[in-house]
Amino acid sequence: MKIKRYQKKFDFSYTFGIYPTIDLLKYQKDSVIKIIKKSNTKGSEGIKEIEELCEELGISVEVADRMIERISFKENTYVIGIFKKYECNLESSANHLVLVEPRNMGNLGTIIRTMLGFNYRNLALIGDSADIFDPKVVRSTMGALFKVNFKYYKNIEEYMSEFPNHSYYPFMLDGDKDIREVKFEEPHSIIQGNESKGLGSEYKNIGQSVFIPHGNDIDSLNLSIATGIGLWEGSRRKREDVL
Amino acid sequence: MKIKRYQKKFDFSYTFGIYPTIDLLKYQKDSVIKIIKKSNTKGSEGIKEIEELCEELGISVEVADRMIERISFKENTYVIGIFKKYECNLESSANHLVLVEPRNMGNLGTIIRTMLGFNYRNLALIGDSADIFDPKVVRSTMGALFKVNFKYYKNIEEYMSEFPNHSYYPFMLDGDKDIREVKFEEPHSIIQGNESKGLGSEYKNIGQSVFIPHGNDIDSLNLSIATGIGLWEGSRRKREDVL
Repeated sequence: MKIKRYQKKFDFSYTFGIYPTIDLLKYQKDSVIKIIKKSNTKGSEGIKEIEELCEELGISVEVADRMIERISFKENTYVIGIFKKYECNLESSANHLVLVEPRNMGNLGTIIRTMLGFNYRNLALIGDSADIFDPKVVRSTMGALFKVNFKYYKNIEEYMSEFPNHSYYPFMLDGDKDIREVKFEEPHSIIQGNESKGLGSEYKNIGQSVFIPHGNDIDSLNLSIATGIGLWEGSRRKREDVL
Repeated sequence: MKIKRYQKKFDFSYTFGIYPTIDLLKYQKDSVIKIIKKSNTKGSEGIKEIEELCEELGISVEVADRMIERISFKENTYVIGIFKKYECNLESSANHLVLVEPRNMGNLGTIIRTMLGFNYRNLALIGDSADIFDPKVVRSTMGALFKVNFKYYKNIEEYMSEFPNHSYYPFMLDGDKDIREVKFEEPHSIIQGNESKGLGSEYKNIGQSVFIPHGNDIDSLNLSIATGIGLWEGSRRKREDVL
């Protein structure tokens, strides 16, 4: 295994910094290959916690200053987790978020963090999607990635055939129902389209299409905002359970 | 006036590309200094619309290929609007969004677009804030910037003394009221804190503090998501008026 700057084709990826690395060790320990740290980290509480976790788990911690400098994008990275890429099965009885061809890595990170906040822990990625393991995504989820199940599907049919028990809510600018009037059945799938194209018209025939009312001064809401409001409304009425 | 790559200290800024430039000409025509375009733009409908608007408004359009290459960050920029920076007075009878020390330019762009979608057209920026005129912000609002009034204030007291008629809703992790139980009075001010610090505890004594319930797996929602949900809920019950 040659440790280089991340590329999509790798079958492993990295966490940069203390907190994402701690979350990796806590929530995806089976995927960890090893941890590398800089030599000048004496006295750091975070590094100490990482070393204790690694000892418990039997994971090796190496000192490798130059390797860290070579592969990190930011200065002041003191620790990196190296982990095998993995996929998860989605829970059939839980609510899902379904993203169709999301491309923007910043959106993906924000969305995964929001999912977790509103207790959606299962993410389906349909078609040609941004690389969820890109260190930029990993970083922007602030560790949330490791607490969420996600799985790639070739197309929406493949996803739907696995979860025929779900109620589907595709979000579309010309959706049939105002989100404020939708009673979200459980378990459900909130389906959001690509940043620039949205969902194709064929999604009108899937479940109950939904729109978020907004003024005409904008063409559409940003994907992460539309998804945030979708997840908020999808869990709004039973939020007591979440807390 | 020397046209160079944008710097915060300039008293002018730029729109890059056709659509933001059209919105600039339509909604902030008094601030336009001039338009520059590349020579190879024959046949472009967008450029034609810009030229017609400029002719109506008596604004000059210059051909300046090398200048465009020098100041734009992206290839394939065919037109740039140059405009004087401006400030607006906020409407006293309208609802406001108040951002305290926002720093992330991407968030600011997304938030301004969301404001417009939910019919908030007045933005107060308190304290040391990201540069709203940075071309990256201008670009990310997709023209929405020119349809929103915004004004900088030194501190929240200065803002409040100008709008004593407003009901204030500071959003805080330890706010006193669940957002789902808040009846937003009109006109109101939705107040959001800085990306990393949130609002200081002194905001507890201002108006009705509000929290957005979320699970403990995340420390906080992303600022643009929290603001999006705030604006959504703040206008949710009277959304009919917006459409």
